[in-house]
This record gives sequence, structure tokens and C-alpha cells, in this order.
Amino acid sequence: MDDIAADPSHPRYASLLMRHRLEVAEERGMLAGSAMIAHGRGEAFDYLLGERTTESARSASLQALAYLRHAKRPVLSVNGNVAALASDAMLRLAAFLSCPLEVNIFYRTPERMKAILSFIDERKAALDLDVKVLGHAPDATIPGLKGPRAACHKEGILASDVILVPLEDGDRCEALVKMGKTVVVIDLNPLSRSAKLASVTIVDELSRALETMLEASETMSELTIDTSYDHQAVLSAGLQEMLNGLNED
Amino acid sequence: MDDIAADPSHPRYASLLMRHRLEVAEERGMLAGSAMIAHGRGEAFDYLLGERTTESARSASLQALAYLRHAKRPVLSVNGNVAALASDAMLRLAAFLSCPLEVNIFYRTPERMKAILSFIDERKAALDLDVKVLGHAPDATIPGLKGPRAACHKEGILASDVILVPLEDGDRCEALVKMGKTVVVIDLNPLSRSAKLASVTIVDELSRALETMLEASETMSELTIDTSYDHQAVLSAGLQEMLNGLNED
Repeated sequence: MDDIAADPSHPRYASLLMRHRLEVAEERGMLAGSAMIAHGRGEAFDYLLGERTTESARSASLQALAYLRHAKRPVLSVNGNVAALASDAMLRLAAFLSCPLEVNIFYRTPERMKAILSFIDERKAALDLDVKVLGHAPDATIPGLKGPRAACHKEGILASDVILVPLEDGDRCEALVKMGKTVVVIDLNPLSRSAKLASVTIVDELSRALETMLEASETMSELTIDTSYDHQAVLSAGLQEMLNGLNED
Repeated sequence: MDDIAADPSHPRYASLLMRHRLEVAEERGMLAGSAMIAHGRGEAFDYLLGERTTESARSASLQALAYLRHAKRPVLSVNGNVAALASDAMLRLAAFLSCPLEVNIFYRTPERMKAILSFIDERKAALDLDVKVLGHAPDATIPGLKGPRAACHKEGILASDVILVPLEDGDRCEALVKMGKTVVVIDLNPLSRSAKLASVTIVDELSRALETMLEASETMSELTIDTSYDHQAVLSAGLQEMLNGLNED
């Protein structure tokens, strides 16, 4: 998939690979105008984290996986950046959970939806996975949102009890929380509205967070929801890691 | 210039205006592929600063202006992002200093150089300013750099004693410092190589930093170089402001 002529031992390899994936997606018309800037903001926060998965991020990923595993109707939401950066991992996670993956974008145009859906279909075929992909024919709306950004599938996002929305906009996150869903967000900015509003927030780079979940899905026999999980404390720990990173330098 | 249909009283107005300028520049072919991502990283650091000019940033801007004012051969270096975001302010500063402005880009292609130079020429004509703009015919090289990125003008960057290089790459900053020049950098990341290596580093958003300098150039009768100026202390103060911002939240 990524035929980037880079050396995996290069210290910036992971970061360069992600940029390469965004460039490919940009060429395919999958991204909104703000996609690159949003990615840059994430890079800055990841830089402060030391570009590594912290203990608090790991515990958030495991809690997220446990919620998804024990959900009645889990669903994974995918926007342009998520499709660009981590289609394979999202498809693998959906396959493990036997749940649908729904393409749901903030700046919805028929062209972008088509570009994202066709990219995901290609990856699904390449990985030979049996995953239901939604997004092509929304037949419901998310209450509290206006216009095309409210569109969703009845049997997908609308009916879900637990939803993974990586890199999500604050308004959308809030609307989903208000619907009573358990909302899992992956966001490198622990101070963002989405990070604060979500039920579980993984303060980690998208592909690393998904890798943690996929590894756990293979290696852990039991996935238990931690009833003493403290969303605020985990968020604060992520922030503290960044402060430590700044202070050490 | 910026006919953005936005309300200046909107809390995100300045930030949206900068994005709009980048979009215009992108359409004109002025930007490198990494421009938007770099801007996003800056946005994240500015967010941590509270999107305001701190006291330490102000003192760095005044020190920078004093150096430039007392230089024998000052020069202002402009790359794609700087041209996109702040051509007017850079031209005004060059006019005040009676010094050349040199377009000098990291990923140099004839097309991008032409796009940037023609944009600056337009702005210069619109502002009716008498500024020598270089970059069109480099006849010298910066020692220690390889390929097209070393190219510069003999009567511009090469001969300069004090140089303003906003948003500069670390390698380039290092090469200029090694040439014995006083190098002024504007960089929102106080931990970047450029920020550390420069003689004076202004940890502030580009247009705010230039505004501070332009205001001072009009209102301050004397611009004195502060001989007790402590680069390290000013950088640390910028970092401390970000830590305070994170802690308060």
C-alpha cells in the first residue's frame, strides 16, 4: 500500500509514512481543505508526547476496546483523515468486533464520500475481510446537527450503543454523547472539546492507538470494562506527560 | 487583499484569515507540499500560548528590530508560507529598514519561485513601496547546504550581517549562524532546532510578531540593542507560558 521509498529505521519514518498516506488521499480527493492543517496540529501534540504511546493512552485504548467488545451494537466511524491514515487498521478492528464501519464526514460532498468509500472497498478487498461498510445511503440524522453533517445510517451510527469516532469534531462528539452513546475518541489534544466530552479519550496518535487495540484483541483472552476508570484522570495524565516532555527538554 | 467573508469580531477570525491566505497561496502554486502541515503545527503551539503575544515574545521582537535597525546590511528572507501569510508586513518592514527582501525557499523550483515573486510584486505595487526584491537570479551559495536550497543572492543573504528568517528550517538556520550572521527567527515552537540555534527567537505567530515590530518602528524614537539580552532565558519564558497555559486549563 505505502510504497514510500523510506528507510523504516529512520527516526521520522512513522511520521513521514503518515504524511505520504495523506498525500495519496489528497490526490484521490478524499480530504477536506482543513485536513492537512488538522494533521499538523496533531503532529505538534505528538511531538510533545515524544511520539510514543504513554501508559495512560494504553489504559484508555484497552478500556475503549472493552467497551466496544461488550457493546450490543458497536460501530466504527471513519472520516477522510482516518480513511487516509488507518483504513487497514479500522477494517481489521471492525472484523474483530464483527461490527459495521460507517463513513461519516463533516464536510460531506458526494465526490468525497465516493472517493473514501472506494478507497475503503479497495483495502477491504486487498485484506480479504468481511466487514459491512456503510455511508453510501444515509437514511437517518444525528439530532442536534444541521445539514449534511447530520446524515447517518439507521442501522449504523443511529442505532449504535458504543461508537469509535477517531479525530472527531467537537460538535459531532457532543451530539453523539447527548444521544446517550458511549463515545470513544482518539485525539492527540487532551484539551480539545472532543477529548473532554467523550466517554473514553485515547490521547495517542491514531495508528498507534489502533495498533494497541489490535494487539490486545489478539493477545488478551479477557477484555473487561474497568468500572473504576476515571476519564478525567486519564486525560490529566496525558496532559502531564506533555508537560513533562516540555520540562525535560 | 483578504476578502474573507468573516466577522473580525469572531474569536477565530485571525486564525481563519491566515488559513484563507494559505488557501489563496496554494491555488497560486506558492506553497510546498508540507506547508499546510507546518502551519497546523504552528497553530497547536499558538493555541498553547493562548494566541496572544507574550511579554517575552515582545521583548524578542524589540531586540530583533534593534539588531535589524543597527545592521550594516540587513536582509529579510521570505519563503512560501511567509509570502502567503505576511507579504504586506514584510514589505513594510523592509521599507522601514531600507533593506532588500529576498525570496529564498527550501524546496526550490522555478515555478514556485516565480509564483512567490509575482505575488510579492503585486503586493509591492498595491502598497506603493520602494523595496528591492531579490531571489530571481541567485549568484551565490550558502556554505554547508547542498543543491538548490543553498542558492542565494550575493548582495542579499550572502553579504548580510543581520538576517530575519521567519519560519525557517533548522539546517538553513544553522548554516546562516555558522556564517557568523545575527539570525532572527520567528518560530512558535520554542523547542525547534531553529529556535534554539538562532541569535534572537521570537516565539509568536508570524503576523503578530511583525505587527509588534512595525508598531515599534513607528512609535519608538530609539531602538537600542539590549546588551544583557538572554536568548536562553527568553526561550525558556516562552516555554513557561505554554506550560502555564496547559496547567490552567
